[in-house]
Amino acid sequence: MTAAESMLKSTPSEIGFSVDELAACIDACFECAQACTACADACLAEDMVAEMRRCITTDLNCADICTATGKVLSRQTMYSADMTRAVLEACRAACALCAAECESHAGMHDHCKICAETCRTCEAACARLLGASA
Amino acid sequence: MTAAESMLKSTPSEIGFSVDELAACIDACFECAQACTACADACLAEDMVAEMRRCITTDLNCADICTATGKVLSRQTMYSADMTRAVLEACRAACALCAAECESHAGMHDHCKICAETCRTCEAACARLLGASA
Amino acid sequence: MTAAESMLKSTPSEIGFSVDELAACIDACFECAQACTACADACLAEDMVAEMRRCITTDLNCADICTATGKVLSRQTMYSADMTRAVLEACRAACALCAAECESHAGMHDHCKICAETCRTCEAACARLLGASA
Amino acid sequence: MTAAESMLKSTPSEIGFSVDELAACIDACFECAQACTACADACLAEDMVAEMRRCITTDLNCADICTATGKVLSRQTMYSADMTRAVLEACRAACALCAAECESHAGMHDHCKICAETCRTCEAACARLLGASA
Repeated sequence: MTAAESMLKSTPSEIGFSVDELAACIDACFECAQACTACADACLAEDMVAEMRRCITTDLNCADICTATGKVLSRQTMYSADMTRAVLEACRAACALCAAECESHAGMHDHCKICAETCRTCEAACARLLGASA
Repeated sequence: MTAAESMLKSTPSEIGFSVDELAACIDACFECAQACTACADACLAEDMVAEMRRCITTDLNCADICTATGKVLSRQTMYSADMTRAVLEACRAACALCAAECESHAGMHDHCKICAETCRTCEAACARLLGASA
Repeated sequence: MTAAESMLKSTPSEIGFSVDELAACIDACFECAQACTACADACLAEDMVAEMRRCITTDLNCADICTATGKVLSRQTMYSADMTRAVLEACRAACALCAAECESHAGMHDHCKICAETCRTCEAACARLLGASA
Repeated sequence: MTAAESMLKSTPSEIGFSVDELAACIDACFECAQACTACADACLAEDMVAEMRRCITTDLNCADICTATGKVLSRQTMYSADMTRAVLEACRAACALCAAECESHAGMHDHCKICAETCRTCEAACARLLGASA
């Protein structure tokens, strides 16, 4: 059981989602924020850094959006479906864009391969919650 | 001229927006992130804190989304219209929700009144860029 | 193997730390950022919210500092020992303060108990890296 | 009067600092977070990006630490002198390091020149509050 799941099970707030799916999405957001930050850093260290510019920017943007989304989802007191949907849609889009960019370098750079997988996991977790909150 | 505008005028990247409108939106995002953080804190200090729960959560969520948006908009190298649109739509929605919540307390709490105005400014700045990027 | 560890093993940068200890600290920072965000939210939902004000503020501050620290530690390209030490010392202090505050409510609120443990883990991970980088 | 100053004047919390100096430091932190984010992006767009790696990493780290510091300083409810000092010391150090790095490129890149000035302003504002809280 991750910390996110333990925390959801100990809050007095009512949770508007399946606790499992919500915890999985929160964990995916924080993991994606980390992986994208690290991928931007690894791309910056590559000899071919000039060709990694788009990947660096996309990673940094995805990291910021995933961080915000992980925090918004961690707040269930006075939950707003509209706020949640807005940030989940942005996060799903950011992860899809970042995954596509990293996939295009996955054959050459392992950090892009791992980051792309992390983004796809987060994209799917956001999609699941969006389905659940529809 | 704000730092955001000076920075946009000194980057070698091409800017996909009117520099004035983009700088105004970046400034509005950071100002809104600050005001929402401070409003959550001021609500927490109110005697009637139990009645300010929704405002606190909304403020904290809006602060996180505005912070992410201000950073994404500050990155114009290898600009992605899709990434930008995704985060602007989330930010416009978050600011509209937070403004509405704060406006409902504006007669009683000056911090909510100021925060609501800051959110409306940011909402409008996001809408302008979304129109521009349409 | 967490994503943080996989990413460290795939970067072309030289790592100035034991990869295990660095990955453990990065993971602890992101986990603590999540737990503190969730604990602030759970405290806000408590009937006795007025008595949880200090815990809420401490949680929110610790979450912000852990988020920044987790990202700084994820960047190893052109690593700066001074930058790393500065942020690790702030994070260690923030986690110690937040752990102490949460421990004082741990008998009453499970979310504070879990959050305190997460903070102590992060405090120890920061102390280990500070020892390593001394 | 900036939003930060208006917010401080409308909170029911007692402020442990001169409101002018605290508002100036909050504003400096958010402005520095923006400038450092933009400078990293502008460095990434330079033809000589491979030589700007250290500046990019330093900018990104400074941006994260300034964002956290601006938010911590915006919270005055149940103010903790220890938490505040910890984050101010990290921010002062980060701004000093980033200013020195950007100054070394200031003759060549205007974005580094502006960013260095913003960092020095933030460094001084943190030092002033640290003096005040000593």
